[in-house]
Amino acid sequence: MTDQDYMQLALEEAWKGCGFVNPNPMVGAVIVKNGRVIGKGAHESYGGPHAERNAIVHCTENLKDATLYVTLAPCCHFGKTPPCTDAILKNGINRVVIGSHDPNPLVAEKSVEILRQHGVEVTAGILRKECDALNDVFFHFIRTREPYVVMKYAMTMDGKIATASRKSKWITGEAAREKVHQDRKRYTAIMTGIGTVLSDDPLLTCRIPGGRNPVRIVCDTKLRIPLTAQLVKTAQKTRTIIVTGSSDVKKRSLLSKAGCEIFTLPLKDGRIDLKTLMRRLGEMDIDSVLMEGGPQLNSAALESGIVRKVQAYISPKLFGGQQAKTPVGGTGVDSPEAAWHLSAPLITKLGQDILLESEVTPCLQEL
Amino acid sequence: MTDQDYMQLALEEAWKGCGFVNPNPMVGAVIVKNGRVIGKGAHESYGGPHAERNAIVHCTENLKDATLYVTLAPCCHFGKTPPCTDAILKNGINRVVIGSHDPNPLVAEKSVEILRQHGVEVTAGILRKECDALNDVFFHFIRTREPYVVMKYAMTMDGKIATASRKSKWITGEAAREKVHQDRKRYTAIMTGIGTVLSDDPLLTCRIPGGRNPVRIVCDTKLRIPLTAQLVKTAQKTRTIIVTGSSDVKKRSLLSKAGCEIFTLPLKDGRIDLKTLMRRLGEMDIDSVLMEGGPQLNSAALESGIVRKVQAYISPKLFGGQQAKTPVGGTGVDSPEAAWHLSAPLITKLGQDILLESEVTPCLQEL
Repeated sequence: MTDQDYMQLALEEAWKGCGFVNPNPMVGAVIVKNGRVIGKGAHESYGGPHAERNAIVHCTENLKDATLYVTLAPCCHFGKTPPCTDAILKNGINRVVIGSHDPNPLVAEKSVEILRQHGVEVTAGILRKECDALNDVFFHFIRTREPYVVMKYAMTMDGKIATASRKSKWITGEAAREKVHQDRKRYTAIMTGIGTVLSDDPLLTCRIPGGRNPVRIVCDTKLRIPLTAQLVKTAQKTRTIIVTGSSDVKKRSLLSKAGCEIFTLPLKDGRIDLKTLMRRLGEMDIDSVLMEGGPQLNSAALESGIVRKVQAYISPKLFGGQQAKTPVGGTGVDSPEAAWHLSAPLITKLGQDILLESEVTPCLQEL
Repeated sequence: MTDQDYMQLALEEAWKGCGFVNPNPMVGAVIVKNGRVIGKGAHESYGGPHAERNAIVHCTENLKDATLYVTLAPCCHFGKTPPCTDAILKNGINRVVIGSHDPNPLVAEKSVEILRQHGVEVTAGILRKECDALNDVFFHFIRTREPYVVMKYAMTMDGKIATASRKSKWITGEAAREKVHQDRKRYTAIMTGIGTVLSDDPLLTCRIPGGRNPVRIVCDTKLRIPLTAQLVKTAQKTRTIIVTGSSDVKKRSLLSKAGCEIFTLPLKDGRIDLKTLMRRLGEMDIDSVLMEGGPQLNSAALESGIVRKVQAYISPKLFGGQQAKTPVGGTGVDSPEAAWHLSAPLITKLGQDILLESEVTPCLQEL
């Protein structure tokens, strides 16, 4: 087994924290001695022990002269838990292999420096790309304090998200829909527009056993959401935020009584100012938003510059229809040069369907 | 090297005939003796020697007890050239490895039988899937006598083939456009609609050095094509067919003088009957048509049931625009169940772009 192989194990371990550590990063650690894995651990929940400490606790034997593989550089400061560098040194671990650097370069250098000063060999940057990708949300949020926004849509191979008669159930198959539910667990909030609520009456919960429901956000400029909507009827159980520009006191009061939170935001050209909304969500420690909206919300989100990642699920079928809806509406760009440019997509096969994932701007490289 | 490895070499050899053998199949052959390749050959041009004969001719040494790898079962009858089974037996080749079977089961059995009766060991079906895919056009054409129709379009990741202001240059990058020119060489004809001619004034030639221009076909119900169109101006050099329902004598005469051929077809619901057109093209030995049209032609082609394969080039960018054109227009289907279902796509990365290729119905399995 190479350093890369062990780091791969640490990456798999890290995913155990998915959906439960936000706005902290997902982190995994593996401890190896004489060519055998003697301990594994993840950062499993927000405020809980770091991955390094969990791996140490799970160790089946003495740690002296062992190697620690960790997907993100260990911390060297007191936060909700004591510094991991202390635990490494105290247990006699003599080599540390790191995936991602700490996004704060001073912290990153300091941890490595402390370890090296105490005679620990440090190797950094193993599977860095994969480790960085694991925490695209964390790296974005810690830098901007605004949520990492993922724009998701499912379309046919001729670019339709519904038939001309507005039917869309279902475009993709089981495997693709399962992946969407994994992402509803991964990202802290889910956002949709009033158009989607009125046409589909969605529940927007995570249907994976042991999952966690995202905070549900509806952009509803004129407060048109019916009190009978599934989102409203389940608002006591699952946090639900209605974002509006309306001051309809009666409707607001009824929605509040049903358990919804109402955010009032200034309108910009008659629409909710999504950039301001993102700042406000960031202040609430909402580090990520999965957008499952229609063409209008998608267009508004792109125009306001909040989208970081695009997930296009593509199903091998054709609907046709000049009037059928496509993923992004609005007025669109005038010339091809003015398009929103995306990174070369990551391709995932999901049954018969394909998922293309691209970054709107190459965020990680900017760090 | 295994049988598969040598068959792979034969497949590569077969591609040398691409664009020059239609409506014959592409075939490649490799001759191996004592673990060394001693000859290679392809069916290089329509009416020319078969791959087996070319491989034999190119052999650098005695063929006794050699093995012949050939992507399609050898013929055993006199056509434009004498039977390949004769040449195999005469040269003392003692093993033949075959990829695809002959689409006519009687011929396939007969060739194998002749070889076995003369003590030649025959192994069939090596890389059959790849060998069959090489000749999707041939297998379709020989069975139906109608051209294999490929519907090609380039779209953004939000399903647009142009911006709302109808600009489309360019959606995809160099590598994708190069692949389109390879296909203009591969397929015998290229077809577009009058809408595309009026908006883009395309040349529809193959710009690959040593390539061959496809026969150019324009569907032009009302004979609106301008005499100044690039297609008309170059019709003396490159075969150009205008398909119309119009009986405008003057315009027809002018176009004919410019070198265009005019096909008059009965209209069906005011549109050219594409199914009848395909039958007529088939009678002319046009075995394949690459459709590079707009949403109207694509919709009409799907509805008439002539499309066998869809090529969706997808570029990682977003145009947005409720009014922007998408690949397939018309009225489209009413419910998702009524969609045109495609096979799980073959995925090819072309620079930043992606090509998805699907069959509209699984033709090969029907054989």
